[in-house]
Order: sequence, then C-alpha cells, then structure tokens
Amino acid sequence: MRKLLLLSCSTIHGSGFLEYAREYIYEFFTKNGVKEVLFVPYANVESLEAYTGKVRKELTKWGFKVTGLNEVSNPIEAVGAAQCIFIGGGNTFLLLKRLQEGNLLEAIRKRVLQDGVPYLGSSAGTNVATASINTTNDMPIVHCESFEALSLVPFNINPHYIDSPPDTKHMGETRETRLNEFHALPTSKPPVLGLREGTFLHVRGDIATIGGIYPARLFIQGKETTEVPSGSDLSYLLKQ
Amino acid sequence: MRKLLLLSCSTIHGSGFLEYAREYIYEFFTKNGVKEVLFVPYANVESLEAYTGKVRKELTKWGFKVTGLNEVSNPIEAVGAAQCIFIGGGNTFLLLKRLQEGNLLEAIRKRVLQDGVPYLGSSAGTNVATASINTTNDMPIVHCESFEALSLVPFNINPHYIDSPPDTKHMGETRETRLNEFHALPTSKPPVLGLREGTFLHVRGDIATIGGIYPARLFIQGKETTEVPSGSDLSYLLKQ
Ligand SMILES: [Ca+2]
Ligand SMILES: [Ca+2]
Repeated sequence: MRKLLLLSCSTIHGSGFLEYAREYIYEFFTKNGVKEVLFVPYANVESLEAYTGKVRKELTKWGFKVTGLNEVSNPIEAVGAAQCIFIGGGNTFLLLKRLQEGNLLEAIRKRVLQDGVPYLGSSAGTNVATASINTTNDMPIVHCESFEALSLVPFNINPHYIDSPPDTKHMGETRETRLNEFHALPTSKPPVLGLREGTFLHVRGDIATIGGIYPARLFIQGKETTEVPSGSDLSYLLKQ
Repeated sequence: MRKLLLLSCSTIHGSGFLEYAREYIYEFFTKNGVKEVLFVPYANVESLEAYTGKVRKELTKWGFKVTGLNEVSNPIEAVGAAQCIFIGGGNTFLLLKRLQEGNLLEAIRKRVLQDGVPYLGSSAGTNVATASINTTNDMPIVHCESFEALSLVPFNINPHYIDSPPDTKHMGETRETRLNEFHALPTSKPPVLGLREGTFLHVRGDIATIGGIYPARLFIQGKETTEVPSGSDLSYLLKQ
C-alpha cells in the first residue's frame, strides 16, 4: 500500500530545520514501523555529505537511523533494501537529473508503489514524487532528458506555493499566473496542488488528505481554482 | 555587425506595453535603418495571433511595420528575409521548444551574427538571445531537448531581476540564491547578468553597454557579485 508524506518545505520561517513538521514525520514513521531512513540528498547543489549530515543530525535526535544515498556503494541496491525513502529539497532539475543518471526512478517507484515502502518528500523531493517537474519553482540550472517524475500520484504539486503580494510593482509572473500558463497549454495537463509552506499532502493507499497549517490551492485545467482547507480529503485526485 | 537590444521586460509598473522602452527601441530601430519588424510571438501560451496584434498595434503607432512569424507560410524564409527580428516575452521553455521544433535557432543566429540583422529581445526573448535558458525565471511547463539558446552573447541573462525583500517570511529561494546555485555547480558556467525591470543591455559589435533605469547585477562564478550602474561598459563580457 502506497504511503506518502509530501511536504511543501523542510523549514518554515522562525523554526529550525524540519522542526515544524516533526510531529507529522514522527507519526508517519512510527505508524509505518520505520526505524531506518534512506536519505536522498541529490537536490543539493553544494555538498551531498553536508546535506546528509544535517538530516542525520536531526532525525537521530528523534530516534531514527539515517543512511545517505551518497554513502552507499550501490544506490539501486540500497533503494531495494530501504525501509523508508526520504528525498530532500534543493534544486529539482539537479535532483531529477541525478535520479535519471543513476537509473533510480523506476527502482524507487517500484519500492513505493509495489512494496509499500514509505516515502517522505520535501520541496524538490515532493516535486519528483508527482507526475512531472513541470511545476517546480526552481531555476533550470541543469538540463534533464525528460521532466517526467516518479508519478507516485497522478497529478502535480507546486511546493512553496505563495499568494501574490497585493502591492507589488514587480511585473514578473505571479505563482498563480505561472500555474495558469501550464494549464493554458493546448494539451491535457494534470491538476496541480499548490502547497503553501507549512502544508503537506498525506497519502495512504487510495486516501489523500491535506494537512498542516494552511489551506492548499487546487488548480484544475479548465476549472476555477479553489482553496482546499487543511484536513480535506483529496482522494478523488488519485483516480486519474 | 551584431546589433542587439535586450530588455529585461516589455512593461514596467504603471506604464503601458513597451511604453517605458519606446525611446530606446525607437532609436535602436531608426539608427539601424529598420522599417519592418519580424515579430516572434512563440513565448505566448495563449494566442500567437493576439500577441502579434498587440505588438503590431503599438509599433505601428511608432511608424514601423510588423509581421508576425505566426502569419507567414515559411518561417525560415521569413527569418532569412527579415530586416529586424523581435522576440517577445512569455514562457521561455515554450519559446525555445517552438524555435527548436521549427529549426529556427540556427537561422536566426546566422542572420544576427553574420548578416547584422538587428535583434530586439524582451524577457523570454532576452533569455533565448543568450548562451542558454538555464537562468530563466519561468516555470518549465514544456520540455526542451536542450537548454542551449541563440548564443548571440556568450553569457546568460536573468531578466526581471529582483532584489530579495528584506522582511519576507517565505522560505523559497531568493533570486540571488537561485543564480548562486547555477554557479555552485561543479562545472564551468558563464557569467549571469541580472537585469532589473526597466534595464537593458545594448550590444553593437563588440561594445556592450548597460542602459535604462537601474543598475544591473553581475554574477561571475567564483567571484563576488557586483552592481553595474546604467551606462557601464560590459564589452569584456563579450570576449569569452
Ligand atoms: Ca528549490
Ligand atoms: Ca515569463
């Protein structure tokens, strides 16, 4: 059974790394019998070692063991043996490219969807859990052979979703405009769930629920955009 | 001789479409003997016809004739015969993909660099004039086979450059952080010129100058980021 916890971000303003989500992550891990986490630091531009170290420091305090995918000799084997997979944030293009180059997408997908291995994603790690990275906010600093992602859910997510400031003088597109551009394309495009910082999507089998601090914002091609309060059931989005 | 006018954007706050840049564009066209403009509306997600119409309406008032690349039966021939090429803003990925699919990159590049056809770019049209679209702000709503662009200059530009608001609670990366991520990659990356809205780069042969309302911001891999006042000579960036 599919078990996903997809966070908008790892940190919210005024709070430490993963701190705001500690309760949700702790519950997600313990309910699913997780004691060891395989962490994927590939989205980090600067240092895979430092990023894994930062995650290990935090999760160890909470009582979980962390292995970084950068620390194993055979990443595909490590995915095959993982008890839980956590993909962290950074740059989504760099993350997807490294997953493609390591032939890891199919391996991770199989583990999560067929074997029921719990998947925790944050920011870029949430983007790659969805149908594609077409709705990432990141700068395309590296090229990817395709934008198709893990498709653990059949729609897209926009993490770090942000409302347009009412008084801006900046003419660059707002987040809403950018997402509407995706749906203005002449081809059929999946829904996009905008997750404000502090908000997450929890999926257990065929049940999807919004959680966290704020409502989510749901964009469906050809339909009016709607606000989805925390606690809402979005299971119907899984049936595409 | 290469003749480029690369605008950060087509519109600034509180001003009409192209209005703020009228003086610069008018001078660029008349100094170079331009009477007819071939407009490339490909970055527009919604309607190529409407976009060309909007540009025609404005430039006709200024005394220039406009043909849209969407209005000709053979785009490559039209590029070959163009007196001036103007690529407008919208979504950079969509623009580059359409240029790639139409085999237009090499045709435009040849016209501008070999034949000295004046090139006007705005926003996405400025992005594609540079080495690559790796530093676009746009959402990757469509996939491109490559991010390499026209390379009319040997560096990158970030249009709509915006300083980080001092009081934000949002944790998504600032523009500066995003550009630093590009340069943090382990491979050699070209400089990136951040053009604030209302600012432009003018290139005539081997002379490059910053113009417009604000200073530009120059990012060079491994070096301190600097402010470049309007009027500054950046010709040394052309020699890479
Ligand atoms: Ca990011
Ligand atoms: Ca744009």
